[in-house]
Order: sequence, then structure tokens, then C-alpha cells
Amino acid sequence: MLPFKTLIKFDRTGHPAVYIQLANGLINLIRDGKIIPGTFLPGTREMARLIQLHRKTVINAYDELAAQGWVESLPQKGFRVVPDLPVVKPRTYKPKSNFSKSVDFTEDLLQLPALVRPGWVSEPGNGAITIDDGFPDPALSPHDSFLQQYRQLLRSEQYHQISSQIDQGGVPHLKSATSTFLNRSRGLNITSEHLIITRGAQMAIYMAAALLIRPGDNIVVSDPNYFMADLIFQKLGAVIHRVAVDQEGMDVDQLEDLLKARRFRMLYVIPHHHHPTTVTMSSARRIQLLNLIKQYELWTIEDDYDYDFHYRNSPILPLASTDHGGRIMYIGSYTKLLGPSFRIGYIVAEKHFIHQLIRFKRLIDIRGDFMMESALANLIENGELGRHIKRSKKIYADRLENASKLITDTFAESIYFEKPQGGMALWLRFDERYPLAQILIKASAQNLHLQGSAYFEGHITNLNSLRFGFASLSEDRIEQALAILRDIIK
Amino acid sequence: MLPFKTLIKFDRTGHPAVYIQLANGLINLIRDGKIIPGTFLPGTREMARLIQLHRKTVINAYDELAAQGWVESLPQKGFRVVPDLPVVKPRTYKPKSNFSKSVDFTEDLLQLPALVRPGWVSEPGNGAITIDDGFPDPALSPHDSFLQQYRQLLRSEQYHQISSQIDQGGVPHLKSATSTFLNRSRGLNITSEHLIITRGAQMAIYMAAALLIRPGDNIVVSDPNYFMADLIFQKLGAVIHRVAVDQEGMDVDQLEDLLKARRFRMLYVIPHHHHPTTVTMSSARRIQLLNLIKQYELWTIEDDYDYDFHYRNSPILPLASTDHGGRIMYIGSYTKLLGPSFRIGYIVAEKHFIHQLIRFKRLIDIRGDFMMESALANLIENGELGRHIKRSKKIYADRLENASKLITDTFAESIYFEKPQGGMALWLRFDERYPLAQILIKASAQNLHLQGSAYFEGHITNLNSLRFGFASLSEDRIEQALAILRDIIK
Repeated sequence: MLPFKTLIKFDRTGHPAVYIQLANGLINLIRDGKIIPGTFLPGTREMARLIQLHRKTVINAYDELAAQGWVESLPQKGFRVVPDLPVVKPRTYKPKSNFSKSVDFTEDLLQLPALVRPGWVSEPGNGAITIDDGFPDPALSPHDSFLQQYRQLLRSEQYHQISSQIDQGGVPHLKSATSTFLNRSRGLNITSEHLIITRGAQMAIYMAAALLIRPGDNIVVSDPNYFMADLIFQKLGAVIHRVAVDQEGMDVDQLEDLLKARRFRMLYVIPHHHHPTTVTMSSARRIQLLNLIKQYELWTIEDDYDYDFHYRNSPILPLASTDHGGRIMYIGSYTKLLGPSFRIGYIVAEKHFIHQLIRFKRLIDIRGDFMMESALANLIENGELGRHIKRSKKIYADRLENASKLITDTFAESIYFEKPQGGMALWLRFDERYPLAQILIKASAQNLHLQGSAYFEGHITNLNSLRFGFASLSEDRIEQALAILRDIIK
Repeated sequence: MLPFKTLIKFDRTGHPAVYIQLANGLINLIRDGKIIPGTFLPGTREMARLIQLHRKTVINAYDELAAQGWVESLPQKGFRVVPDLPVVKPRTYKPKSNFSKSVDFTEDLLQLPALVRPGWVSEPGNGAITIDDGFPDPALSPHDSFLQQYRQLLRSEQYHQISSQIDQGGVPHLKSATSTFLNRSRGLNITSEHLIITRGAQMAIYMAAALLIRPGDNIVVSDPNYFMADLIFQKLGAVIHRVAVDQEGMDVDQLEDLLKARRFRMLYVIPHHHHPTTVTMSSARRIQLLNLIKQYELWTIEDDYDYDFHYRNSPILPLASTDHGGRIMYIGSYTKLLGPSFRIGYIVAEKHFIHQLIRFKRLIDIRGDFMMESALANLIENGELGRHIKRSKKIYADRLENASKLITDTFAESIYFEKPQGGMALWLRFDERYPLAQILIKASAQNLHLQGSAYFEGHITNLNSLRFGFASLSEDRIEQALAILRDIIK
């Protein structure tokens, strides 16, 4: 007799019902070869005694097994495991997770690199200060406005209608509100047909690249480049070529030399507050770049993730706002405006490309959050989004001033940076006397977690640089963070 | 003098400020080669007259242009477009969208097939009845519980903490609640480490497949198969082999013949309420299949999207609940439990695979909706999800009974189907006298939109079959839909 009491574990909360738990336990014993097809189960009375449950529970469990086709009830004889079930080799009784691996298949899988980090010495604990890559302050997120919109939507006729629509790359209302928003703020000249809504800029980059890049394709990016975009291009099998970034942005002469030498499938460029360096591309470079895009018919992803936060003057219009022959895919995001839990971005592109993107999006994310999308559309149209941008822009501009001044005053000889014209992060270059890997480890030990993009190993070894997100932290917290950094760098 | 008044369009709502609109208009003229580098702009007074704006507005616009580096202010002379801007070939003045294409690049793009449809005769209008693929009823969605959870979360200490966490494949709280939920309901034996949260089952399938499949890999699926999974595998470059589905599910003997003949990279299987046919795989087949998976060390995606809605008896435990050597990736979804706006799914797999999935997920969707995920974790743990499942299961079981009876009574000679043991759809096979393409078009003309997966052309030409989602519609609506169908089939 099997030691049923030991072999079958019961969850005393009664989820699922105990008789189901018993049935499932027996099924596992059958499937693991511990109960052989053709054998009789103990009588219901005996089983009840063995596992100390009510006999009625055992009867229910046996009936369940019969209904599922595992056992058959033979009159006068009891319940027998169906004889023609395939026989399984019996194994030992050692319990282990059913997801532990029995073979070594690490070699067999695609391996993605970890983020470049010297090891997470410790997870942020209580009272930790986290410096991010340049994210908005969640305390400023307009949650109340969204909750109010959700309540209204649920009471409206609209709710059932949008619930049952097939996703055509975003709720129609948000697509039209977004095209108006972009035409006004970015000098575009588009309609809903040129637009698809995504879960933030990251998905937008992935989708645009996944449609363009075939394994082995040559593409151009900046050096350094947004590392998460690099990982996408690598995953898609692109051969990546790099063009330097200086104070005026991507070096367009270098780019032209590359373009003369061979055919490139795609260019990825961040003209505004370049990631990671925060540089804004100069007007002259922009015109040169546009000419190259047209001359070489170069597919171009223009990543303009931070457009709405430009403090010095009005932001420079996107490349996409001029006549570019349909080769530019323009990517932006509402997440920076709304806060980290609101993942809504978009791609603006030529109509045929948008059709393909709508089809592709369904494959990776069959539909978006239509409640959130509808609410946002209302907030754009009733002017709340505009007021929210104005308000938070002022706060972030102050935080930029404050952080820049503090760092200049305290770290004149150890940290170099140019105050950016906008965005949510500083690009701190540490003097070579202070190797970044050590700083990250020491800071983490003091509960300061520098989680912005760090560039100090891998193919870019000489940068010793870090993104320092200033927008998400109050002035107090930034002062505390810099005090800890001062202790480390002395 | 250029016709500035005609060339520059102003948005009278004052978004953005009018001087910015003027500056942007001039920038576009410079970039389009209509204003040549080195030329002087009209004096501020003259420009004000030309475009009928206040002179102060023009001055602000010119200052903005200077700040952005497009023009320079020469004392006594006025504002000149910076002479060393690259020269652009002037074009005609014809206005057109900046995203219209100037070259034909349709050949240049990856082409994804449209859904198999005879043409959407009309979009669902007012009063339309839409029959979906098998979705939950949005009227049953527990929105109130979620809104209440959101409000609590926003007031809690937790909010700031989860906002600033790097996404490790889902909020930790939801990962642990889900592993408990799955261990109880599906006989798994896992911890949070075996789990990643996704935006629904679709993203889960894409992610698991994208890590496994390299272009040219041979894979096996059922025939017919969930067409959105097929599209994913095609996009990833897999060579697809098919194994028939009969009343007991996938034909495992056929599968074994294939496996003997060559090496396969992956198997995709839906043992519960197979999509599209709704067949549940028999116990005997499951054991045979598990033996094959182990014997051939076959990577397997087990798609169990509809597990929680099984009406006849307790659902059959997943393949993944047995000891399978870590080769199975088990995919499920909360969306079917909660409603279409709650896109939360998961993959259960061996730890090393999960590590890779967490990295890959960041590339396509840098973080999930941590508000929704946290709220769901609370609803699982406080028992609300369990009660919600119980309630909606009863409703859907009734709808299944009702729809099955109506269809049997009315269409005995024209529509064939087996009443499924669970799930949210019927698989209707139309008699060949009634070609499905015509039925879809006729129904659409009567405002009945049959949007479930339809199989009547492409590689599967002989099925003439349709998924008929019964769960999302009240009994009244189903009756109306069937009355329209009866008019068409007579």
C-alpha cells in the first residue's frame, strides 16, 4: 500500500475543495507512475482511514477521477485505474518542483546580457534613495483624474462599445486626440491614420525595429547609445555600426562616410536630450541629417522620448515635422508626462507602415488598456493634460537648476557634466580617479542606489559615466543623495 | 517676399503659444528650403503687418529662433538666417502630410497577413451584435474592486516603493500570490522564481517563442491551430509542421512519427479547450504526450488560457503539473477571469528560462502596470478573485447550456458542434451548403458581426468553421444573434 498520507499534500484553506485536492493528488501519482494502470485504488472506507478524511470526500474524489477518465468504477469491485492508460516508468518518491530541470539546457537558449552592473550589492531597503535613469516623479502623477475618468466611463454607454472593439492600434478617440496634440506641439501634419498607440516608447522601438530589421542587416546608432535600444537591435540580429556623439549631437559627417561606404537598413537617432548623454542636436546638424535621410532613402527611427520637457527655450521641432519622404518613424511617450504606471507611447509613420504595425502589435499584445487610453483621450481634450505638463515642467526645471548647482559646487573636480536643455537626467562623467563600479558598490552599501544607466564596461570602457535622474526626487532627497556621494568621493 | 500669411498656419486655440507657432512655421520654411540660409527675415514691424499679429509676438518668435540657433541678430540690420546652415533644395509649396511617402517602399517591408476575413463589410455600428472569439463579459468585470484597491494603494507607503522598483517580471506581491494560486488550482509546485507576469497570454506566447525559435527551426503545432500563435511562429521564422486534432485532442501517434523523423525545436499545444476546436485532450493522450516530451527533450509551450472555466467536472491538471524535466513553459491568463481591459498573464517555467524572459520582457515592455498588478495580488489574497471566479463560472455555464440548446434546436441540419467541457466559445462547423464567407458578409449587413476566428480559406480550406463566443453575451443577445443567423441559413 502506498503511503498516501505522505504522498498527497492538502492545503487546509480548502482551495480548491478537499475532494479535488485528493483527486489531483491521485492523478499525479498515476501520471508519475506510482500508481500503475490496472491497479485498484483502496476502498473508499480504507482510503478515508489512511488519509484521515471523511469517507464522503473520498467518494467525491473517486467520482471526479471517473468523470475525468482516470479510473473506472467496477460493480462489486471498486475503482480501478483505467488499464489502457500508457505505462509510465516509476520514479523515486523524492518530492521536487515540477519545474526543476533534469537536463542542462543552458547552452540551448538565447542568452541576453544582464544590465551592465557590478552586482546588485543589495536591493533597495527601507529608507533607501534610488536615483533612476530619468523618470517622472510618481507623486505628481494625475491618478485622481484618471480614477474619475474611469468611474465616468464605467457608467457610460461607451464602456460596452470600447470593450468589444478589436484593437486597431489604440482606442480611436486617443488616436485622434494624439494626432491633434502632436500637430500642435510638434509641428506635425498627421491624422489618426499615421499613428499607433503602444505600451510606452520601449515597445514602440521594439515594434518599429522588428518590422524593419532582418538578421544580418547593417544599422547605425550613436556612440554611446540608449543601451535598451542596442539590446533590441542585437536580439533582432542587426549588425550595429556606431557614430560618435559630440556637443552638437550625432556626428553627421561620420554618418555620411558610413552611408557612402555601404547600404544601411536603418538609422536610430535621439535628437532631443540624447540618451544617455542628454545632448540636443543642433539645427545645422538636423538639416544635414534630413538631407542624408532623403538622399540615401534611409529608414530612420527618431526617438523623441523627452520632447515635452525642454526648459531652456521651446523644444526644437522633430526631424519628422518636415517633409522627409515617409522614411521616418517618430516615437514618443506619454509615460514621461503621466508617471511610471501609465505606459502609453506611440509611433507616427507613413500609413502603410502603420497598417503593418497594427498587425504586428496584436501578436505581442493583443489589445491595449482601453480604459486608460480612453481616459487619457478625455484628459487631453479637456485641457487637463496641458495644465499638468505646465505644472510639472516648472517643478522639474527647478529641480534641474538645484541639482546642477549642488553638483557643480560640491564636485567641481570629480564630476563633469553639461547642464542639459531639458529632460529628466544629468549625464555625470566621473573623473578617472573615481572608478564608477566602486562608487556604485559603495553607494549601495550606504543605501544610495544609483540605478541610472551606467557606462563603464563592455564595449564602452572609457566613459565612467552615469545617468542621474533628478526629476523624480524632492530637493531634500537630492541633497541627501549628494551628501552620501560626497562621503564616497573624497 | 514669401506669402507668409498663407504659408504659416496658426492654431487659434493658442496651443502652443502663438509666438511658438510662428517660430515653428519659420523653421519649417527654413528646413524646407523656402527660406535660404543667409537671407534676412522681414523686420518685426513688417512681419507683424504681413501676418497680422502683434509686433511683440513677432519679436518673441525671432528671439526664440535665435535661441534655437536658426537665426542670428545683427545690430542695425535685423535677423538673418544663419548662413552656414546646410542648403536644402527648394520644393514646391504644395502642402501635404509630412508622412506621405515619396517612394514606393511597400516591397521593402515585412508583410504580415491580415486576419482571414472576406472583408469587413461594415464596422459594428449602433445596436450591432458582435460575436467574439470567446471573451469574458465586460459587464462582469470587477472594476469597483480594482478602483477601491487603487485608492488604497495611492494612500499607502507602498505606492512610492513599487513606483521606483525595476520591473523583475512583475510586482513581487503578484508573483507570490500567483504561485500560490497556481499551486492550489493546478497542482503545480512552484515559487515566484518560476514565474513571470506578462500583458496577457498573447505576449506570453510571443516571449516564450521568441527566446526559443531561431529562423529556420522546425516546430510542431496542431491542425487547426490558434492562428495568432501561428502568426507569431511565422514572424519568428519557424518552419511549421502540423498534427491533426480529433475528439481526444492532438493526435499523439502522428506527433511521435514526426519526432522520430527529425529534430524539432518546439511543440505548441493547447490541451484544455483547444483553440479553435474547443476539444479537451483525454487523459490517455496526456500521458503519452508527456512521455514524448521527456523522451525527445522537446521544448513545449502549454497554452492553458481557459483553464479556470471548466464546467463539466474539475479541470484536468496541466501537463506542467507533473515532473517534466523543466521543458514545459506553462502559459495562462487572468484576462479571462477579469475582463478584456485587464491584460495580465503569466509564464511558468524553469528558473533559468525565467531569468532570460525577465530580460527579454524589458526590451518589449519595460515595465508592467504595477498598480493593476498590486491590486490583483490583493484581490487574490483577500479571496475576492476566488468568489468572482465562482460567480462568473456559474453564469457562463448557464450561457453555454442555453446557447448549445438553441443552436441544436434551430440548426440541426446546418451547423454541427460538440458541446465543450469548458471555455467561452463554441466551435461551429457549417454544412458545406452554407459557405462561411457568404454568411459572414450577410450577417454583417444585418448588423451581426461574427468576429470569432473563422477558418475557411488559406491553408485550411475545408473547415468552414467559426468560433462563437457565448460568454460575453446575455441570453437575449444570443437569441437575437441566432434569429439573424436563422434568417440567413434557410
